[in-house]
Amino acid sequence: MATASGRHFLQIPGPTNVPDNVLRAISAPTIDHRGPEFRELVVGLLDEVKPVFGTTRPVVILPSSGTGAWEAALVNTLSPGDRVLCFETGHFATLWQDMARGLGLTVDFVPGDWRHGVDPDAVAERLAADTAHEIKAVCVVHNETSTGVTSRIADVRRAIDSTGHPALYLVDTISSLGSIDYRHDEWGVDVTVAGSQKGLMLPPGLGFNAVSDKALRASRDAGLTRSYFDWAPILDANERGFFPYTPATNLLYGLREALRMLDAEGLPNVFARHTRHAEATRAAVRAWGLDVLCLDEREHSGALTAVLLPEEHDADQVRRIILDRFDMSLGAGLGKLTGRIFRIGHLGHFNDLTLAGTLAGVQMGLSLAGVKVDPAGVAAALQRLERP
Amino acid sequence: MATASGRHFLQIPGPTNVPDNVLRAISAPTIDHRGPEFRELVVGLLDEVKPVFGTTRPVVILPSSGTGAWEAALVNTLSPGDRVLCFETGHFATLWQDMARGLGLTVDFVPGDWRHGVDPDAVAERLAADTAHEIKAVCVVHNETSTGVTSRIADVRRAIDSTGHPALYLVDTISSLGSIDYRHDEWGVDVTVAGSQKGLMLPPGLGFNAVSDKALRASRDAGLTRSYFDWAPILDANERGFFPYTPATNLLYGLREALRMLDAEGLPNVFARHTRHAEATRAAVRAWGLDVLCLDEREHSGALTAVLLPEEHDADQVRRIILDRFDMSLGAGLGKLTGRIFRIGHLGHFNDLTLAGTLAGVQMGLSLAGVKVDPAGVAAALQRLERP
Amino acid sequence: MATASGRHFLQIPGPTNVPDNVLRAISAPTIDHRGPEFRELVVGLLDEVKPVFGTTRPVVILPSSGTGAWEAALVNTLSPGDRVLCFETGHFATLWQDMARGLGLTVDFVPGDWRHGVDPDAVAERLAADTAHEIKAVCVVHNETSTGVTSRIADVRRAIDSTGHPALYLVDTISSLGSIDYRHDEWGVDVTVAGSQKGLMLPPGLGFNAVSDKALRASRDAGLTRSYFDWAPILDANERGFFPYTPATNLLYGLREALRMLDAEGLPNVFARHTRHAEATRAAVRAWGLDVLCLDEREHSGALTAVLLPEEHDADQVRRIILDRFDMSLGAGLGKLTGRIFRIGHLGHFNDLTLAGTLAGVQMGLSLAGVKVDPAGVAAALQRLERP
Amino acid sequence: MATASGRHFLQIPGPTNVPDNVLRAISAPTIDHRGPEFRELVVGLLDEVKPVFGTTRPVVILPSSGTGAWEAALVNTLSPGDRVLCFETGHFATLWQDMARGLGLTVDFVPGDWRHGVDPDAVAERLAADTAHEIKAVCVVHNETSTGVTSRIADVRRAIDSTGHPALYLVDTISSLGSIDYRHDEWGVDVTVAGSQKGLMLPPGLGFNAVSDKALRASRDAGLTRSYFDWAPILDANERGFFPYTPATNLLYGLREALRMLDAEGLPNVFARHTRHAEATRAAVRAWGLDVLCLDEREHSGALTAVLLPEEHDADQVRRIILDRFDMSLGAGLGKLTGRIFRIGHLGHFNDLTLAGTLAGVQMGLSLAGVKVDPAGVAAALQRLERP
Repeated sequence: MATASGRHFLQIPGPTNVPDNVLRAISAPTIDHRGPEFRELVVGLLDEVKPVFGTTRPVVILPSSGTGAWEAALVNTLSPGDRVLCFETGHFATLWQDMARGLGLTVDFVPGDWRHGVDPDAVAERLAADTAHEIKAVCVVHNETSTGVTSRIADVRRAIDSTGHPALYLVDTISSLGSIDYRHDEWGVDVTVAGSQKGLMLPPGLGFNAVSDKALRASRDAGLTRSYFDWAPILDANERGFFPYTPATNLLYGLREALRMLDAEGLPNVFARHTRHAEATRAAVRAWGLDVLCLDEREHSGALTAVLLPEEHDADQVRRIILDRFDMSLGAGLGKLTGRIFRIGHLGHFNDLTLAGTLAGVQMGLSLAGVKVDPAGVAAALQRLERP
Repeated sequence: MATASGRHFLQIPGPTNVPDNVLRAISAPTIDHRGPEFRELVVGLLDEVKPVFGTTRPVVILPSSGTGAWEAALVNTLSPGDRVLCFETGHFATLWQDMARGLGLTVDFVPGDWRHGVDPDAVAERLAADTAHEIKAVCVVHNETSTGVTSRIADVRRAIDSTGHPALYLVDTISSLGSIDYRHDEWGVDVTVAGSQKGLMLPPGLGFNAVSDKALRASRDAGLTRSYFDWAPILDANERGFFPYTPATNLLYGLREALRMLDAEGLPNVFARHTRHAEATRAAVRAWGLDVLCLDEREHSGALTAVLLPEEHDADQVRRIILDRFDMSLGAGLGKLTGRIFRIGHLGHFNDLTLAGTLAGVQMGLSLAGVKVDPAGVAAALQRLERP
Repeated sequence: MATASGRHFLQIPGPTNVPDNVLRAISAPTIDHRGPEFRELVVGLLDEVKPVFGTTRPVVILPSSGTGAWEAALVNTLSPGDRVLCFETGHFATLWQDMARGLGLTVDFVPGDWRHGVDPDAVAERLAADTAHEIKAVCVVHNETSTGVTSRIADVRRAIDSTGHPALYLVDTISSLGSIDYRHDEWGVDVTVAGSQKGLMLPPGLGFNAVSDKALRASRDAGLTRSYFDWAPILDANERGFFPYTPATNLLYGLREALRMLDAEGLPNVFARHTRHAEATRAAVRAWGLDVLCLDEREHSGALTAVLLPEEHDADQVRRIILDRFDMSLGAGLGKLTGRIFRIGHLGHFNDLTLAGTLAGVQMGLSLAGVKVDPAGVAAALQRLERP
Repeated sequence: MATASGRHFLQIPGPTNVPDNVLRAISAPTIDHRGPEFRELVVGLLDEVKPVFGTTRPVVILPSSGTGAWEAALVNTLSPGDRVLCFETGHFATLWQDMARGLGLTVDFVPGDWRHGVDPDAVAERLAADTAHEIKAVCVVHNETSTGVTSRIADVRRAIDSTGHPALYLVDTISSLGSIDYRHDEWGVDVTVAGSQKGLMLPPGLGFNAVSDKALRASRDAGLTRSYFDWAPILDANERGFFPYTPATNLLYGLREALRMLDAEGLPNVFARHTRHAEATRAAVRAWGLDVLCLDEREHSGALTAVLLPEEHDADQVRRIILDRFDMSLGAGLGKLTGRIFRIGHLGHFNDLTLAGTLAGVQMGLSLAGVKVDPAGVAAALQRLERP
């Protein structure tokens, strides 16, 4: 690429564009993680972080990536050999069940086509069949970052409840939290897994677990080996405003700033903004004459849109052209979608004109890559964006 | 305006979007302005700043706005009552001649329609008529920030030369330097006036005078009162790597970083980038069915485009809607163009997708303001941007 | 110097150590200087800046160094040939009267020994003798940055009043404002001159004039040529929350942050802190067996301490050793004190332990330079610092 | 505490004072962790990080605290029930063996008095007695952050070799790396554990494992459950310049900057600087009439000094007074040393005058707390600092 001018368009579905005030916040001097100023920061944060999860229960903040938060959710609640129910909704759902297997759990992995979310009926069916209650947890990815397909978390909860099955409900919100409506308490989730680098508008480096009372009780008897990711010493130290080991201080500064921004905008407004941007993006995709990967209208993601290319085109080649010519990063197809799709991230700190620029770059890149598309995509998106 | 998300689009014709690395550079700790580290900075800068002016002669760096650099150009070279030749090319040319009058100079102000640059023939005619050589300086604004019309500096030089007139040639490049091709030495300019906050991609706070040998000689006898803006003590202190009074240290850090960016991209590439963006912008304006203010193809600005609205519309109302709805700042019509035009800045640190987003915002804003435009503007611009 | 580790000790009497939060504030993106967000910033600032001057009247903020603010004070209030009364209290007082002369004023320059402030009796005597009221202004430097000697501004006011003389009273507070108690209104000052890079804890680049009603009236008839520094268009634009030309936006962000810090600490506490640090510094100097330059107990500066060396030593050599070995910058002797003194800045953002480190560096540097001093200086300072 | 002015003295033994350029580096915009710019960053870093470990073998960089790097060292090389040899050199050595037990290892924990490092003879004795080679690893903390006592890593290596025992050698350098001489390859260490927030001058959030070929071989058969901390996928992805999951991008920017600073100063100079500062600190402690906790001259830490108080004094009360009055954070006594000692951190980005300020604050704080000390401590330290 020639020397780039202007701001890079980081339109992968995370890490997202970090607001400049958050970047400035994380560049404040590191302080004593055992002193009074830090305690005040932590006490505030542990409270301020709850609304974004829709919870009044504890949220565990980990110095880790989202992958670490996945591990924390499993090792704190389950025992070797426990059976867990997972769904093949995409690449990350597959990786999470791989991790579960690697940790010594037995996984029932319900196959999927990567174009639909979890089917609540399938959940009900599986759990109803498990009369011995061998299944200890149902693991669902709220927003599949690899596909732009969401699963309906409340509906899955209802499906679980319909069977009276006592399994824990673990939900990955890594790429949805802070972008797509989510309610840990109301939807009866037991462990919500999240990371810093998506809707929370931070650099990567923090993992989160929101923890229900039921999950907390389960953690007392859970037998998987855990140390770094053990909730107990963290929750214990958090009581006094500290952490059991050195936390990622500067990212916590950023978290405080980011939470205040979300609060100032208002979570319902944040969610509506993302929904609207997703609609505008789909309008563009359809006007181009291309397919959105997600097939169910109820399951479109507000955070990203995966675009399926005609078979004869290599999506990675399109992405390379767009990066070279327009200095924009898009998400690649992962796993079995490699080369077949590209993903447009429209989550986090984002607005109408950046979306317009993003879609303009995609449209020009498709054209330059020789993908036959109707150049009406941007106009279609603008039509949507002109409306509130 | 509701709480904004995403990055503000600062598309006024300056101050421009400051690159984040330049912002970080200016946030380095202030140092001793009389110590060895500062000397090294200054010695380097005084050298590195020359290519962007197209000069090998001294460049005076002032802790001031561009307005201060205007004053410096006048007070260092002229004496009370001196006659200067100015041209009404727009709002800033008018302000500069106002300043000249205020400083005690006699101004020949050639009227203009704000839609054309300086007419080289008019220059030749005026100077040829001045057989007594009473005119001591010709003052031209290279790029009229209020209109998006440039004056052809080399052609004006040729016109001056054609008459053999010894007048000094003072050129304001405040909104062109670092965005539009400019050559202080080659074009025989005596004082080039510039500021930090446009093509140099810095916050406001630095003024510049590039100074020819002839201007330097003139400064020895120039009789206008000067103190803060006096070149002599600055050039003298610069010899030793210092300034006669405390300079704007942190902006100098930013200047070093910005000059390195311009150098890395290569000035010809920088100019070509702006020319191309201006072409794309004009393609959009024409496709909308609106008029570009500039009427002469040779005089279109690479830095900004002024768009004339049909008489029944208030351009400031359009701008307000765009700011409220799309968080983008555009330039207002100034002076006699108030309410009649808006100005799209596409100078400084800027790229294709930001331009696409910018034009999308303008198109939607025009529509929302009830200005009847063909929504083909953005598409027309993208057609241009698809080509290198 | 070898590669330095740790933080540089910037103990010149300005620019001072800029707080990291102020540095982060100035690195926020530059915004439209004609938009609503900027207006809000300016309206707030013009109000918040007043207490630090001790005034309820307007404060003019200039994009300039303190030298520019000197010029503004003179050109806005005086006319060519006007007589002004100045006092040779040190290097900067000398430079200011040089500027006055250069601007076409007639200066009565009362000689001094650079070890005392302005003598109020001398003021009274001079003014009383001026029965024709030819003297239009009395110019006093509150804190002579070159000597660490203050002038008693309130006492000079009383001296002026005792004569009933109508001269304006212009005071340079460049290195005292925000560090040493100062009261523009209460002390009847007409123009207070200040800069950003000392007690205001900012990088250099802003100049200030606090303006009394009397000065404002004087400005209407003042005949010195002025343009960039003209108060009238600034005050006029300020009414609407703007500036007549592009202001130094990013430094204004820093100013807001710095003013909030001063307000949070409380100005009386800020002044007491500096007084205490000055006492500790003098305790060290005396314990070393060296002389403080200032000879009058009533005139010691809270902002800096100038240390006189025995004749056989070169103070600049001491400073060089300290910079090389301990990465600390101290102020040089200026003008006729070159090589005879060094100056320890203890103004701005500063605390006990930084002072202790500073004095330790001076003590070791003196020893390494072969200046015979009693190594009891630091201990003497600590004795003072142990007390509140 | 009243509003603090000036820079906080963060003199705990980590997190350390992060250099401002490192803070600025981590505030650069987050980029695509799968794009070419990131790959270039990673490829460079994986190489540039090696010298500070004294290795040419791979270094694994983890998005975790140092505690995570402890876990990584154990889970990658050992199997459930494996016997490991640990030494009670202080609080962190105790925590590490607690972790080992928690992970299912069998720990031989050799008791200690927290005032000595590991005794190489004890190592030899234990290993010689283990003729069945049941001990799979020897775990040593290079620099006990809780005591300021180092263990002689090369001597322990020799002790291991003297027995011909094949145990792995795992060394925690969390608070020594980049401050105290360390040589992974030369000293035959198999896994070196480190964190970002001490000598590497970064905020917390990165963990490191330098890995010998032998450790790598061991990892193939190691049976402890591992997922997040598994070296294999990391090393595999690193080959292509990436990570298997989202890394802590912005801290990696800081790491690059910090490594360049260490390289510019030169590691031998860095180590000498810390040795010298430790000597000056001990000179102060002894002059005060207090005891350094470390009892063996060969084992003094260059990174921190723990000061033992007379029994009747509460070290935490001293620390509180120092924080309140002088805005300096010191390290607390941990575990069985709670209230008995305080710890002065002099590691990381640090220089002579900051040390002088630090010791001045300690001296005054001791006095204010009523601890009878000879106020000659600072002077004794300065005597040492006056020498190179």
